[in-house]
Amino acid sequence: MKTKGFSDLYLVLSLVFCFVVFQGSVHGRLLSISKPKPDNAAPFARWLVSQSSWGVLNTISSDLGGAPFGNVVSFSDGLPGKGRGIPYFYLTTLDPTASNALKDQRSSFTISEYPIGTCNKADPENPTCSKITLTGKLRVLDENSSEAKFAQTALFAKHPEMKDWPKDHDFQIFKLEIEDIFMINWFGGPKPLTVEQYLHEKMNEHSFIL
Amino acid sequence: MKTKGFSDLYLVLSLVFCFVVFQGSVHGRLLSISKPKPDNAAPFARWLVSQSSWGVLNTISSDLGGAPFGNVVSFSDGLPGKGRGIPYFYLTTLDPTASNALKDQRSSFTISEYPIGTCNKADPENPTCSKITLTGKLRVLDENSSEAKFAQTALFAKHPEMKDWPKDHDFQIFKLEIEDIFMINWFGGPKPLTVEQYLHEKMNEHSFIL
Repeated sequence: MKTKGFSDLYLVLSLVFCFVVFQGSVHGRLLSISKPKPDNAAPFARWLVSQSSWGVLNTISSDLGGAPFGNVVSFSDGLPGKGRGIPYFYLTTLDPTASNALKDQRSSFTISEYPIGTCNKADPENPTCSKITLTGKLRVLDENSSEAKFAQTALFAKHPEMKDWPKDHDFQIFKLEIEDIFMINWFGGPKPLTVEQYLHEKMNEHSFIL
Repeated sequence: MKTKGFSDLYLVLSLVFCFVVFQGSVHGRLLSISKPKPDNAAPFARWLVSQSSWGVLNTISSDLGGAPFGNVVSFSDGLPGKGRGIPYFYLTTLDPTASNALKDQRSSFTISEYPIGTCNKADPENPTCSKITLTGKLRVLDENSSEAKFAQTALFAKHPEMKDWPKDHDFQIFKLEIEDIFMINWFGGPKPLTVEQYLHEKMNEHSFIL
């Protein structure tokens, strides 16, 4: 009986183990290749940001009469599968975006789902092809801070060529401190979504297991 | 002698005709499938705009403390192969971009070469993966104007689903009146390029013949 009991226990534990691993794998795999349902605003927004590698970063240009100035930039919000939702950038003041931000921190960062390739046949402006604009302040990070080290690791992991960019261009790490989120991912207008809900969404703690 | 003279003239005219047609065809074919060399700033900029179907349109958001607000939009600068370089948009004031522009026309429109697929393995922020920002004024067009009719035809040709978008959303046609051009398409900083050079570039008059 004792041996039988151990066998049963072993069998049950094995099944539980397999179930957990299988669930985890499928969950991770699903999250890494498919998008959350549009009604799940926070996971959807975090998915869109973590799946993207570039967007348009907008600043105020005093050189152009205070016009809003968009610029194509690469970004990362964390190591693959471990994004925190905050976009980090690797910018040089040789480029107007960084120098604009040092004069006026008001900024937004805009990402389209279209380049990810999951919009099917929808037009880029169709509301079912999602888009997100994070508005806030664009700040340079202290290069010795732990956040700057996290951000640099995240950026170089997603954009390997960055580590070889010219040293004399004085690239610095910037972050967007998010104050407002505008996301359209279905019909019916922008999704209600607070910064709190967006940043505290836990999907990245259990996703991307594989 | 008279007949001989006509024959010679006929031969010369035939050769000239063949040469012009051949040049036009090859030129047109090359322009329609490959990008101009980076040093040819005006043709390059017009190529990048005409090959793209969407970008990020930036306005000033009074609702967000005057922040620059980027938004993913579709656009067209003309029928395929007949672009004029001026981006036209189909916007509704249900969306913040159009309502922002009606309060403050300062705007920019940003396009990346990355989604076209011709950046090879360069990162989206690498200067060899080109990007352009057209800065100016975003104005709504009189719907009865000939320019609005041209623009609508251009938009619906490039974005067929637009003609079926909800009538009660009151979509209107906007244009960006370009005042400044910022383009990076190689190492060495932004390419010098005036609006005059950009708009008067003739590539679209003789290109895309095939």
